[in-house]
Amino acid sequence: SGPSPSPGPGPTVPPPDKASIFADLSPAELRAVRTFLMSRPELGLSPSRGGPLAKNTLFLVELLPPKKRLALRYLDQGGPRPRRQARAVIFFGGQSQPNVTEFAVGPLPQPSSYRPLRFKGGRTIPFAARPMTQLEYELLHHTLVEAMEPLYRLLRDATGFWYHNCSQRCLTFSDIAPRGLAPGERRTWLVLQRFVEGFFLHPVGLEVLVDHRDPDPRRWAVQQLWYNGQYFSSPQELARRYEQGTLVVAHLAEPPSQQLFSSYEPRGRFATDTPTEVHGAKVCEPQGRRYRLRGNQLEYGGWSLAFRLRSSAGLQLFDLRFNGERVAYEVSVQEAIAFYGGHTPAAMQTKYMDAGWGMGSVTYELARGIDCPEVATYLDAHHLYDADGPVRFSRAICIFELPTGVPLRRHFDSDFQGGFHFYAGLEGQALVLRTTSTVYNYDYIWDFLLYPNGVMEAKVHATGFIHATFYTPQGRRYGSRVHSHVLGNLHTHLVHYKVDLDIAGTGNSFETMDLRFENISNPWSPGARVVQPWLHRQPRRSERQAAFPFGKALPRYLLFYNPHQRNRWGHARSYRIQHSSHAGRVLPRGWQEEKGISWGRYHLAVTRHHENEPSSSSIYAQNDPWEPLVSFEGFLRDNETIEDQDLVAWVTVGFLHVPHAEDIPNTATPGNAVGFFLRPFNFFDEDPSVASRSPVIVRPLDPPTFSRLEIQRWTPASPGPCVAPGPFTYNGTYRQE
Amino acid sequence: SGPSPSPGPGPTVPPPDKASIFADLSPAELRAVRTFLMSRPELGLSPSRGGPLAKNTLFLVELLPPKKRLALRYLDQGGPRPRRQARAVIFFGGQSQPNVTEFAVGPLPQPSSYRPLRFKGGRTIPFAARPMTQLEYELLHHTLVEAMEPLYRLLRDATGFWYHNCSQRCLTFSDIAPRGLAPGERRTWLVLQRFVEGFFLHPVGLEVLVDHRDPDPRRWAVQQLWYNGQYFSSPQELARRYEQGTLVVAHLAEPPSQQLFSSYEPRGRFATDTPTEVHGAKVCEPQGRRYRLRGNQLEYGGWSLAFRLRSSAGLQLFDLRFNGERVAYEVSVQEAIAFYGGHTPAAMQTKYMDAGWGMGSVTYELARGIDCPEVATYLDAHHLYDADGPVRFSRAICIFELPTGVPLRRHFDSDFQGGFHFYAGLEGQALVLRTTSTVYNYDYIWDFLLYPNGVMEAKVHATGFIHATFYTPQGRRYGSRVHSHVLGNLHTHLVHYKVDLDIAGTGNSFETMDLRFENISNPWSPGARVVQPWLHRQPRRSERQAAFPFGKALPRYLLFYNPHQRNRWGHARSYRIQHSSHAGRVLPRGWQEEKGISWGRYHLAVTRHHENEPSSSSIYAQNDPWEPLVSFEGFLRDNETIEDQDLVAWVTVGFLHVPHAEDIPNTATPGNAVGFFLRPFNFFDEDPSVASRSPVIVRPLDPPTFSRLEIQRWTPASPGPCVAPGPFTYNGTYRQE
Ligand SMILES: [Ca+2]
Ligand SMILES: [Ca+2]
Ligand SMILES: [Ca+2]
Ligand SMILES: [Ca+2]
Ligand SMILES: [Cu+2]
Ligand SMILES: [Cu+2]
Repeated sequence: SGPSPSPGPGPTVPPPDKASIFADLSPAELRAVRTFLMSRPELGLSPSRGGPLAKNTLFLVELLPPKKRLALRYLDQGGPRPRRQARAVIFFGGQSQPNVTEFAVGPLPQPSSYRPLRFKGGRTIPFAARPMTQLEYELLHHTLVEAMEPLYRLLRDATGFWYHNCSQRCLTFSDIAPRGLAPGERRTWLVLQRFVEGFFLHPVGLEVLVDHRDPDPRRWAVQQLWYNGQYFSSPQELARRYEQGTLVVAHLAEPPSQQLFSSYEPRGRFATDTPTEVHGAKVCEPQGRRYRLRGNQLEYGGWSLAFRLRSSAGLQLFDLRFNGERVAYEVSVQEAIAFYGGHTPAAMQTKYMDAGWGMGSVTYELARGIDCPEVATYLDAHHLYDADGPVRFSRAICIFELPTGVPLRRHFDSDFQGGFHFYAGLEGQALVLRTTSTVYNYDYIWDFLLYPNGVMEAKVHATGFIHATFYTPQGRRYGSRVHSHVLGNLHTHLVHYKVDLDIAGTGNSFETMDLRFENISNPWSPGARVVQPWLHRQPRRSERQAAFPFGKALPRYLLFYNPHQRNRWGHARSYRIQHSSHAGRVLPRGWQEEKGISWGRYHLAVTRHHENEPSSSSIYAQNDPWEPLVSFEGFLRDNETIEDQDLVAWVTVGFLHVPHAEDIPNTATPGNAVGFFLRPFNFFDEDPSVASRSPVIVRPLDPPTFSRLEIQRWTPASPGPCVAPGPFTYNGTYRQE
Repeated sequence: SGPSPSPGPGPTVPPPDKASIFADLSPAELRAVRTFLMSRPELGLSPSRGGPLAKNTLFLVELLPPKKRLALRYLDQGGPRPRRQARAVIFFGGQSQPNVTEFAVGPLPQPSSYRPLRFKGGRTIPFAARPMTQLEYELLHHTLVEAMEPLYRLLRDATGFWYHNCSQRCLTFSDIAPRGLAPGERRTWLVLQRFVEGFFLHPVGLEVLVDHRDPDPRRWAVQQLWYNGQYFSSPQELARRYEQGTLVVAHLAEPPSQQLFSSYEPRGRFATDTPTEVHGAKVCEPQGRRYRLRGNQLEYGGWSLAFRLRSSAGLQLFDLRFNGERVAYEVSVQEAIAFYGGHTPAAMQTKYMDAGWGMGSVTYELARGIDCPEVATYLDAHHLYDADGPVRFSRAICIFELPTGVPLRRHFDSDFQGGFHFYAGLEGQALVLRTTSTVYNYDYIWDFLLYPNGVMEAKVHATGFIHATFYTPQGRRYGSRVHSHVLGNLHTHLVHYKVDLDIAGTGNSFETMDLRFENISNPWSPGARVVQPWLHRQPRRSERQAAFPFGKALPRYLLFYNPHQRNRWGHARSYRIQHSSHAGRVLPRGWQEEKGISWGRYHLAVTRHHENEPSSSSIYAQNDPWEPLVSFEGFLRDNETIEDQDLVAWVTVGFLHVPHAEDIPNTATPGNAVGFFLRPFNFFDEDPSVASRSPVIVRPLDPPTFSRLEIQRWTPASPGPCVAPGPFTYNGTYRQE
């Protein structure tokens, strides 16, 4: 992967040295790694595309970030620049004991050696745990072509569409995961859908279980089918039942050629008849950009950070600083899951873990003016993920300053006599760093927002198509019927973030704070009592004390602080994590697949930093959640002390999504955003946005007349042509007339 | 009160008949009511300003909204137009038994009669429960002038400022509430502060308890003082201690004339050196307004509503409809409170209930480009609140379309081969209706957002100055030291909303929904078990079953539905309330002042609608919370059935605010917003935003080449001059290079 400026308006200054140690691999670097590995005879690599499954292939190449220890030595202590390395994932499918192995490859840009990377615990990666590839999908398609042939008449009669030799009236399929019930299995329920615009919403009532575990696809087989509420052991059995006339057939109406319900084509009218055929409010930049982008380094209003876009799990920020001081070493998306319930076998089996679907690699083009404002900066990304070379994803990332629509802060200082002492306000803007992940049906919009007052916000919106299954009356227990034959299945979205806070250094402690009530004697009224809140602080000294499971109230202040540094007023310099989430459990603790997402037990867990605990999930969790290669619970099991240590906060946010008719055609973003804030808490001596020259202060010069006002500002009186002309004016009086 | 177009760009079409029954009183109407009442000899009214306290005065005049029954008969059944009436609040201070009485006055515009209005239960309003007036503040000031004279030397020596004869070096005071410990009391702790810019942050360490209960201010008296940690029975005692040299004096440094910490004047620099002396991103409207404002009726993207701005509690929406169908009869702010803890007497006593401070009347001028975008529509409001005539508050309300920065919905439909089937997106905008309340130190920003997909959001941001007290080391238990002598005291903000949902009619029911897990046998794998979520629905049949106290988890789906109407797919047509809040208890249940805010016990309570339960609070709660005139708990006590009834949802949101150094100079808005969403849940048959002509759909015409794309849109190709020129373009491919 690797952001690079899009053609067109984009910065071209070379990246500053320091941030570039976190930069994604360039296309040239990706190519160099591939060329090097392909040339190693002992690896026996073949191209990814075409050919058999039983071969060795290079699945993924991306940056292997430097170890934190080495990076900090370089960043902070003038140490040597860490060697630039790649992480390469190889599928060894051409061996008698197929497996997957990850390698460190270096040094870049001219790699000359590689060594295996080990997961904590040293387990090897089972071949069955690997993500799907384009090749495997093609083979699955061929398996289905054959398997569906006996069902041609049923499908054609019931749906007007069929699978083999279909040309214009094709069925397609969606696969769900996990692919079985136990480690080593690879058998997938496929949901058949009419291949029209928005096919996700067009299940035909047929689901097919295909075992595709064997590297030889000739040994793949349909194990079972579900059609319209009933199970069948083979396509032949189902076809026979249809021919016999003993099958309950779900006849689907012909989809209209216009205004299909699953499309974005406008239909109907707003009763208000307010215009929508003209452009609405937009973001503009009357005086240009106020952020600086150099390579992968971004700066705005006191903030600086380095960023990259991993093919696995998406955006990763490094070396997040405010006014030069580090606040976090890393902030990154780890995983996004959606666990479903339903009555069809596919629905009840669906437990999507999106890192296993290359969540960070499906970063398709952002539409200017829709996905980001017209004036945004767009960057390309390059992924080498299930491909035979780097793939450019144009305009995968956007960066823009957002007018939040609300002042950052303001106050009107009334004189309570019809005038005022002063008015002061600071306009509200935030810098947004965004990418999207279209994981098949769903579109996640990933945002990091930087506010000039030292607040950072991580936010994810969910949109795109719901994962829907065929409606049967029993399905109502699991969601809403959203169309004639479509059930929107309930599911819980959870998103996991790693937040390696380094609050003015790596030696940090953690405490929680909330209010309690005290009942004391009233010091100024003998005999009376005062009941009032006070601040109950709870130092959390060990990892178990700092893990907050769902179902228990999360204390409202989660404070990470440097025990050796105090601000001017004597308080430990702290940052606070504030959740914005409606997350809850997705499965009972310890139940089968739940082991694969044990991070999803906690609103927040705080662990000691370890180089061998870089991530809470992996691309292998999806296809083997039962014995996960990364067990987050294992990070906590040693219950280390977390006092004055290098701490990592692991934040889970999410929401329960019960689809409803209004999720058609697509889930909308309002109300479907979750995330968290990083907020300074006595980290500074005052709000650092006082450094901004953007405030306006208005003071009356001749109270109580208020005929002359002093308007103090440090920006031009008029912002320029993109807004209504005319300078800023203010009056402020409120007078009886 | 009463919104009216600001001079300048503003709509001038006369209000449509129907919404105008909810319109605030015009200045002429306010004047007519006052003139009528002033002319009634039996009321014996005097002007509010000047003169003694012991007189009868007209305190407040505003619209008395029509009874719902009559309004609906008019709106829906062609019934007669409800008579337009005013609510008038009269302070009968000139009587032997002083009291407050509210009257209905009508008919407007030429009032000819009045009748007393009764609170539920018929209690009369104690005189001591009345809000403060400008006159009472002036008298308090005079009391302090006298009382502070003996302290001149102490104050001058310790602070460089004093109270009487101060001219340029003045102290001022802030009063806190409630004003005593029991009904009938009116004795207030006053916090003395240096009168500099942002005086709220300049307590000098002196707090004074003044009894001002008697209508005759000559009988007012200082009862106690607190100085720098110690209590004194009189100013003389404190002065004597100072003269004797036995007082621990807190010497305050001279405040600087420039860059005072409590001011907005810029200081310091962002280390990033990114520009702030130019204008940042703005909101613009390249093709004009897409909303329609006629009088107090607002329409946008399917939504229509009537609004007003009550002097008591601010914005109130009526007759909220989407595509002509009513969703809510009323959505309004009821109350905003902040309950504090601290070590000084003022801090431990502070329990602000802002409706008692005329929260809806302190709607000062919004600064164009800061408080709302430059292109917003600004409306004036008129309040007759503690004044001898209507007072115009210029630009008190603003309305604008906000680019949310995120698409309303979008999907990229990959072909997984380097191209795509289609891209579709709908730009994200919302209409914002905003006012602010500057309640002394604090500034609330009140927003209602209308999204074109049938979602409405209510949101309040907190900014302005914190309520701070003098720092002593014992204060650390209650907050953060934020400057040499300043403690930011912990407090909880709670805001209460009334949401009289009428989901396609007034006969509504309520249920909650959340997930539960089931453990069933796997239908396709004998012997295996499936554990999966299902939708646990809980009909809530009575008011007690529908009251959700803090401390217990709130079910995630709160569904109001019409039991007699189903959408096309057979689901009860519903709207959902979704909280966005970190609220919690402010005091133990039943404790003294807590009785005055019993609505603050519940995240949500659902009651039957009653004409005599219009509000959950009153302007009298602040000064008599112990025996409140409106007891919200009383709305629930009869535990009525709520099945197929006219229901009202009462929503509490809020957050715990532990001030920190970054609250200086002012609390910032990022992270300090709470509110709720109203979201359709199977109310429609599909997302009603499909009526919008704003989507863009891109389809390749020649896959797999992707050299020709069809861009389908219903808006002009280029939005016009306020954004970068050039038409929309798109490519969408991601190709190996
Ligand atoms: Ca550990
Ligand atoms: Ca750390
Ligand atoms: Ca009741
Ligand atoms: Ca109702
Ligand atoms: Cu969802
Ligand atoms: Cu606050």
